[in-house]
Amino acid sequence: MSTTTPARTRVFSGMRPTGELHIGHLFGALGNWVRLQDQAECIYSVVDLHALTTGYEDVGGIRRNGQLMVADWLAVGIDPERCILFRQSDISEHSELAAMLGMITPLSWLERVPTYKGQLQELGESIDTFGFLGYPLLQTADIILYKATEVPVGQDQLPHLELAREIVRRFNNFYGEVFPEPQARLADVPLILGVDNRKMSKSYGNAITLGSSDDEIDRMVGSMITDPQRVRKSDPGRPEVCNVWAYHNLFGTPAPELDVIYAGCTSAELGCVQDKRALAATIKDVIRPIRERRAAFLEDPDRIEDILADGARRAKAIAGPVLAEAKAAMGL
Amino acid sequence: MSTTTPARTRVFSGMRPTGELHIGHLFGALGNWVRLQDQAECIYSVVDLHALTTGYEDVGGIRRNGQLMVADWLAVGIDPERCILFRQSDISEHSELAAMLGMITPLSWLERVPTYKGQLQELGESIDTFGFLGYPLLQTADIILYKATEVPVGQDQLPHLELAREIVRRFNNFYGEVFPEPQARLADVPLILGVDNRKMSKSYGNAITLGSSDDEIDRMVGSMITDPQRVRKSDPGRPEVCNVWAYHNLFGTPAPELDVIYAGCTSAELGCVQDKRALAATIKDVIRPIRERRAAFLEDPDRIEDILADGARRAKAIAGPVLAEAKAAMGL
Repeated sequence: MSTTTPARTRVFSGMRPTGELHIGHLFGALGNWVRLQDQAECIYSVVDLHALTTGYEDVGGIRRNGQLMVADWLAVGIDPERCILFRQSDISEHSELAAMLGMITPLSWLERVPTYKGQLQELGESIDTFGFLGYPLLQTADIILYKATEVPVGQDQLPHLELAREIVRRFNNFYGEVFPEPQARLADVPLILGVDNRKMSKSYGNAITLGSSDDEIDRMVGSMITDPQRVRKSDPGRPEVCNVWAYHNLFGTPAPELDVIYAGCTSAELGCVQDKRALAATIKDVIRPIRERRAAFLEDPDRIEDILADGARRAKAIAGPVLAEAKAAMGL
Repeated sequence: MSTTTPARTRVFSGMRPTGELHIGHLFGALGNWVRLQDQAECIYSVVDLHALTTGYEDVGGIRRNGQLMVADWLAVGIDPERCILFRQSDISEHSELAAMLGMITPLSWLERVPTYKGQLQELGESIDTFGFLGYPLLQTADIILYKATEVPVGQDQLPHLELAREIVRRFNNFYGEVFPEPQARLADVPLILGVDNRKMSKSYGNAITLGSSDDEIDRMVGSMITDPQRVRKSDPGRPEVCNVWAYHNLFGTPAPELDVIYAGCTSAELGCVQDKRALAATIKDVIRPIRERRAAFLEDPDRIEDILADGARRAKAIAGPVLAEAKAAMGL
């Protein structure tokens, strides 16, 4: 019954089905996922049960948002041949293992998770549910159900992973060595602001999405805030405080061109309008192929469902034996 | 996708795998279960996940205790042809539905369950886990996963069933009418004391078990406490305060014989030793056939496992479509 820890690095990561993704994802988690494909066995999940921890009152969009998101994954280069892509709720073992882990997890461990109280205050009393408190427990089950050895996380997710490791140690201590302790793989993710210089967020409408049309990109870039001290074109600009400059670097404007822009901006020869036009062109070149692949996938939602169904079969082939091993260890 | 509420009364009930059962069960829940077979479609479960809510540190006996318990069920006349008998952990849908219900259940509803704080104090801090707090939620899932319309409960379980109904109302209110509200069927269970006049409990060793040998029954009955005011045989006894008298009634000593015993005891003509001998004979007649059937089942644990596997198939055939309906309603 014993399954072994994978010989190759195995990565698990999940994203809630939030719908269309944006450039924050492209240069953050998603870019990281694409790179990891070459280095490890990667399992990426549409964690739709997690969507219910905060959004249980309005559930109409969960399935469609999952499809939109997977279309974006595929469009940016996540390869369903090399990775396992699946919907969390298709694999019953996630809930089963979470229920089992809940039996040995002191309530206080969950109450002490740093984000818990903060999110309660931010999101209000309606999310003060049993499932919301148990969120990091379900997340632990997600990871260890595949005996994943590495989890790509941002700094803010480290406490969750530390909790996962504590739960693994407790389980192994009671019932024998079943699960490896998952390690954090800290992603080197740049801080990307929205076009209004606020935190990038879908709800603020300040994010260029992966499905943006050329017109939308022109409009978004046109609205970007540059150096606030540069009131007239004849004022020299400071690229260091300019979001347009940050985007140039992000989207890979070539170095020689960057040098020209830097010189032109700081010498007041290059105006912001012209600079933005150059940036928009670069962004359009990056987004266009993604948008086109995305649209092709979305024209054929059955293909997305087939990919997820195939992924579910492969996920189940790993999760089933691991759950059986955990059950046997727990005397069930 | 919509499954319908069963036309016939459907009963769900579960018992933790505690091992050998005793006469408290025989004249309590188990006797009730046997009677219900004739009146309803009955689904009876070995709720092994629930065993983990309080006993997660010592899990070695869960499987064997489940077999011992099912042998007792079968021995007293629970009929696997008419009922569905299965092990809870064999049906993944229990954990899945519990996870989904957890998303909509306010933490405060669970914290307010009357038995919660009491049991925490009684059983100590080690059971203060997420799973223990979620116990009534898993119980709700157990019941409504089969759209059970009635649940045989004792008075002490009424708050749990009330909570189940509240969760059902909340679910139906958010996502449409999926689950019927389960109704309590209050069992008319006599209060049975142990042979030492304390609460009957396996841990007190004061319960005649369904596997007791004739010798053990003789010894147990011989140790019973009668009327404490009857010091000598020549003192008249008071059957009303005598546990031996209560047992005579419980085990069905025939009315004419009861009359003789009552007269003999109250007139001091019948001594306690002789009275106990008569009771032991009656009990042995009741227990012997149960013990023999029980032993036959236990000689063939594969048969018990076959019965549970067949029950699991039939349980899954109901639970699968109901879970699918609930998932669709919740947008998954």
